[in-house]
Amino acid sequence: MAKPVNAFYAQSGGVTAVINASAAGVIEAAREHPDVIAKVYAGRNGIIGALTEDLIDTSQESAADIAALRHTPAGAFGSCRYKLKGFDKNQAEYERLIEVFRAHDIGYFFYNGGGDSADTCLKVSQLGAKLGYPIQAIHVPKTVDNDLPFTDCCPGFGSVAKYVAVSIKEAAFDVASMARTSTKVFILEVMGRHAGWIAAAGGLAAQQEGDAPQIILFPEVKFDQTAFIDRVRQSVEHNGYCAIVASEGLQTLDGRFFSEAGGTDAFGHSQLGGLAPRLAELVKEKTRYKYHWAVADYLQRAARHIASKVDVEQAYAVGRAAVEMALAGKSGMMATIVRDADTPYRWHVGEAPLAQVANVEKKMPREFISADGFGITDACRRYLAPLIEGEAYPPYAGGLPQYVKLKSAPVPKRTGREFTI
Amino acid sequence: MAKPVNAFYAQSGGVTAVINASAAGVIEAAREHPDVIAKVYAGRNGIIGALTEDLIDTSQESAADIAALRHTPAGAFGSCRYKLKGFDKNQAEYERLIEVFRAHDIGYFFYNGGGDSADTCLKVSQLGAKLGYPIQAIHVPKTVDNDLPFTDCCPGFGSVAKYVAVSIKEAAFDVASMARTSTKVFILEVMGRHAGWIAAAGGLAAQQEGDAPQIILFPEVKFDQTAFIDRVRQSVEHNGYCAIVASEGLQTLDGRFFSEAGGTDAFGHSQLGGLAPRLAELVKEKTRYKYHWAVADYLQRAARHIASKVDVEQAYAVGRAAVEMALAGKSGMMATIVRDADTPYRWHVGEAPLAQVANVEKKMPREFISADGFGITDACRRYLAPLIEGEAYPPYAGGLPQYVKLKSAPVPKRTGREFTI
Repeated sequence: MAKPVNAFYAQSGGVTAVINASAAGVIEAAREHPDVIAKVYAGRNGIIGALTEDLIDTSQESAADIAALRHTPAGAFGSCRYKLKGFDKNQAEYERLIEVFRAHDIGYFFYNGGGDSADTCLKVSQLGAKLGYPIQAIHVPKTVDNDLPFTDCCPGFGSVAKYVAVSIKEAAFDVASMARTSTKVFILEVMGRHAGWIAAAGGLAAQQEGDAPQIILFPEVKFDQTAFIDRVRQSVEHNGYCAIVASEGLQTLDGRFFSEAGGTDAFGHSQLGGLAPRLAELVKEKTRYKYHWAVADYLQRAARHIASKVDVEQAYAVGRAAVEMALAGKSGMMATIVRDADTPYRWHVGEAPLAQVANVEKKMPREFISADGFGITDACRRYLAPLIEGEAYPPYAGGLPQYVKLKSAPVPKRTGREFTI
Repeated sequence: MAKPVNAFYAQSGGVTAVINASAAGVIEAAREHPDVIAKVYAGRNGIIGALTEDLIDTSQESAADIAALRHTPAGAFGSCRYKLKGFDKNQAEYERLIEVFRAHDIGYFFYNGGGDSADTCLKVSQLGAKLGYPIQAIHVPKTVDNDLPFTDCCPGFGSVAKYVAVSIKEAAFDVASMARTSTKVFILEVMGRHAGWIAAAGGLAAQQEGDAPQIILFPEVKFDQTAFIDRVRQSVEHNGYCAIVASEGLQTLDGRFFSEAGGTDAFGHSQLGGLAPRLAELVKEKTRYKYHWAVADYLQRAARHIASKVDVEQAYAVGRAAVEMALAGKSGMMATIVRDADTPYRWHVGEAPLAQVANVEKKMPREFISADGFGITDACRRYLAPLIEGEAYPPYAGGLPQYVKLKSAPVPKRTGREFTI
């Protein structure tokens, strides 16, 4: 029987409320196979940790701390926004990876990220064929943008979806109470520069005709100011108020980002603020209604306190599955979520070849957006509803969630060489 | 024994995650004394409901629905921002109140609000002496601003405090993960135009030296840009990132609101956006650090999903106590929270005369703010920590909290007269 080798695991891109659950899945599954995987070394700050030989020895973390990753948001090992170039463009980086992997006896590579990371993972899986260092590379999907192909959904998305649906439901109760003498329009800006999945999830809050949000603004639907203002007025007249979920990626009719279309101020600076304050200004100008707006930003993707149980379970499952796929001899693959049924929701973990995954974005289908462009369809609701099911509360002490901070002990360096990125 | 009379209850000012728990306390306590209080009529949209004879018959709501108010945010009966003028300035309003109260046999008045509402409640308590219509008026305290005197804290505040502490803790985990190649500074804008209580609560997230938030900006401390930027740089150098909680009421050195100090754009419009984007712009200009910002706005005060258990219990208790005070023959009083001990936290409900409460604002004591002006002291922590203790999750179905919408059946009008406000 072959001597066990080490595994490399890293987190990449924007972090989520559940990416650490995937880390727990990888590490716990690996620990069950000490005959094959000796230790899991985590890259500090993603692939940068591999390039700079900045590795964390996860074997020094207790089982309890690794288990606590299941309820701890963000990237416990640090993430990065760093995409490896092609083999032809920057061979030095690949040679450095091999140098580090060889020095630390790394035979498995688990990369936890979105589309760009899938591309990095694919390239690592090709190190054997291209540069003679065989390594099994498996991608663990993660992105709040929900835009990876082949998987029914992306771990991280379900929890943002739940946060947005809960938040707009609550804020709409608030504005409905205030509307008689005060605020009549409320705007919640959410993430989604290129796809409206997150904004769409706000639509789950509406359970009956007239329920908030009365308007959803998608990046997929060019912004028609007149139709929008008409709709705001209608809602205020019929419901007393109007609650709006707006995707940060909303575009003007001529295809610019609405949030950047405001020009510059007297000093030549771009006007401050994002989409929500601009929309609010438009509402005020056209209707004189009193408004409030919120920008959820990182709060939405870090909100482990209101994570979706389904999402936590899926994030953990794809982490475990990645290890099992590697143990089965696979490489250049991504673990995926396969939906078996909508109601009651059933799913299992499948797989897809990275060559087909990398750099493909899954857009929202047009049939998920209502004909008027301001809401979601029943088909969209059937797709989204299961993803926010269940609560998975973290433990609390003194009123605060108890998130784990790992020891993150560095692995002693062995290459004797610095590498500048 | 006297024939039972009806009670009037209404919600006033900005609503909270727990004001409906006070409503439940009032209504449930009243239902236990049908020999004294026949029915509770709620004003639709606060005192406006009394002036316009727009009353809701709460006796038509089931016990289950009234109990569900304990876990439903915002104002179930609608709120208003409307302050009664003095007796001498607008006697017509007081005569109208008496007309409506008399027509509906109302002998008790429970008003659920902040400082302005305490003033309204005081005036109603004087209707007997001034205009010959005796009515017992008890104030039920509520305000996220935590600025009412005589009470240890204000129901509504503890839940916002918890939301802000949890949110900055989570977002700081996020920015810490991203800081190596991306966002280094995160700014969360919170409520508090005149007092820094809510911003201070963010400080509870910091449990060890160096923990986020590394900077808190209070309305009580004039904004020193240079000291602030120095502090941001220090935090990024020491911790890798900087998480900031900023009160919307932050003021410039010359006493203007920082959020309004940006001037106008080329078209003469005020620059868009609130405090957070302006601060972010400043950070970018001075440090070039990549930043993100969030504005919590209504999300923070509507966030029943992460309400403080202590807060929910106190909100309910002051509602019940108000009825008990009225039954004991009291009037012109406010129910208060009295702290018996910090650790473990013990409290009971007390009372204070409205004549001393009305229009007095309780500021944050200077000794609650650290010497450098950017953090909270241990004394502040001892005061705040108990207020966010415990979780009081609402029930969920299909991934969403199940908040109640009442039937809100109108009481048939009897005065035969319209009243325009």
